[in-house]
Amino acid sequence: MTKGRRMKKLLIGGTHGNEWTGIYLLEYFAKFEDYDECVLANPKAFQQNKRFVDEDLNRCFSQEKIQDPGTVYERARAADLVEKIKKVDLLVDLHTTTSNMGPTVIFSQKSREVYQVLAYVQKNYPEVKFLFNPDPNKQYMISHAKLGFVIEVGPVANSCLKADVFESSKKIAKLISQAVSSQISLPESLEFYAYEMKIDYKYDENSKLASMVHLDVQGKDFVPLRRGQAVLQDFYAKDIVVDGVEGLFPVFINEAAYYNYKYALQLVKKELWPRP
Amino acid sequence: MTKGRRMKKLLIGGTHGNEWTGIYLLEYFAKFEDYDECVLANPKAFQQNKRFVDEDLNRCFSQEKIQDPGTVYERARAADLVEKIKKVDLLVDLHTTTSNMGPTVIFSQKSREVYQVLAYVQKNYPEVKFLFNPDPNKQYMISHAKLGFVIEVGPVANSCLKADVFESSKKIAKLISQAVSSQISLPESLEFYAYEMKIDYKYDENSKLASMVHLDVQGKDFVPLRRGQAVLQDFYAKDIVVDGVEGLFPVFINEAAYYNYKYALQLVKKELWPRP
Repeated sequence: MTKGRRMKKLLIGGTHGNEWTGIYLLEYFAKFEDYDECVLANPKAFQQNKRFVDEDLNRCFSQEKIQDPGTVYERARAADLVEKIKKVDLLVDLHTTTSNMGPTVIFSQKSREVYQVLAYVQKNYPEVKFLFNPDPNKQYMISHAKLGFVIEVGPVANSCLKADVFESSKKIAKLISQAVSSQISLPESLEFYAYEMKIDYKYDENSKLASMVHLDVQGKDFVPLRRGQAVLQDFYAKDIVVDGVEGLFPVFINEAAYYNYKYALQLVKKELWPRP
Repeated sequence: MTKGRRMKKLLIGGTHGNEWTGIYLLEYFAKFEDYDECVLANPKAFQQNKRFVDEDLNRCFSQEKIQDPGTVYERARAADLVEKIKKVDLLVDLHTTTSNMGPTVIFSQKSREVYQVLAYVQKNYPEVKFLFNPDPNKQYMISHAKLGFVIEVGPVANSCLKADVFESSKKIAKLISQAVSSQISLPESLEFYAYEMKIDYKYDENSKLASMVHLDVQGKDFVPLRRGQAVLQDFYAKDIVVDGVEGLFPVFINEAAYYNYKYALQLVKKELWPRP
């Protein structure tokens, strides 16, 4: 994939200021040569130990928001970061989740180069799952890269480091960096999960939260839902069944940040990507 | 324990504004008669979805801080809450932790009444562990009650509800309420864990965090440390051994809020409390 010249690689951490793993991994990688540059995306949010100051940075990369930053700190930051991203060949953006996702790589575009990277990661770290999350409005940071990946590992609480999540994220970041300079024989197909829909929490008549993820679903990211299985429960331990979700795979189950968006989990379906 | 008249019982939630379990349990208990009053301790912190606004409320109950609130929101709040607490016989304060503590009850004073309550909880919910945390400066809320207990359950990330933690906290809160109106034959002794010491994180020469809880210790609350076992590891996966901790039990392992206090875990020892 190198095509004669050395690829420029950028590692980003702390796009969300309370996801510490990526932030401390920047310091680790600064001592090695896997990445040419390691950048803390949202230093102000990290300083204040919160996800964002004014607006979620990883929803600020659309053309509209970059061109009209106003006084929104994260929009100005997105504009600066896009300039950096344009100059590199590979972007890796480090995230964590409070969900039990395990090691996951998110990609938003399908190309032969993406396929090659994922195949390399899978070969060396078979536990990693791949999540395809198309981004038509290019609001995510990685959508602005020639080749961009999100590393998303959990569970870890916000504003915490957890050794397993830290080491797993480190390993994936190293593998992606190696992948773009390596040649492997590509597998016939790759298994990945494609975004389908979200499941909202239930609220009471005063718009107050009135449900949580069901005990039998909590922590079961990537375990397909059974027929009639309750997805939520109310505060009186009463089951809440959602129709039409049988066979779909829940992910981002009980991610803390998604209470803001009022949803409890995402549902994805398993797909096969034939070798391009 | 009723001594002829009905005991007045107060349930407090949201002493820490990002520990949602207690906050939503207040609404649950408002519909039942287990507690006479259910009070949200730190509404401003909950509104802002953080642990506290100015100062950790559960460190604001010392005489000095209550008498000299200045402009500290939590100190004024502590003064108000003490007035409420003085008028009741039982106080239960609901907390959660990002540590894998399971169901835990914390008490700060030893008396026959405390013994009776713990014995009742143990009989009906044997998995619950008891933590003795003396509070000579009376900085914690429960120290101002005739009879006070903290319910501390984990793991759950901040600003999240988790069904197992929610149901477990609910069950303990019900049992403590029942305990003070019930007669049981007291066991000969009760097992509990008594606070011994803290283990600090390691920092680099620039005072930046340079370690995390060791992979083999993470999540192992109440599992005694072995001889020579590493308690921390640095970001290069190198073990950090701490001397003199063999046989002690780690608790509050990797509690998010304790990064502020720079410690990674507390160590407790197991003790037997003979029937008073």
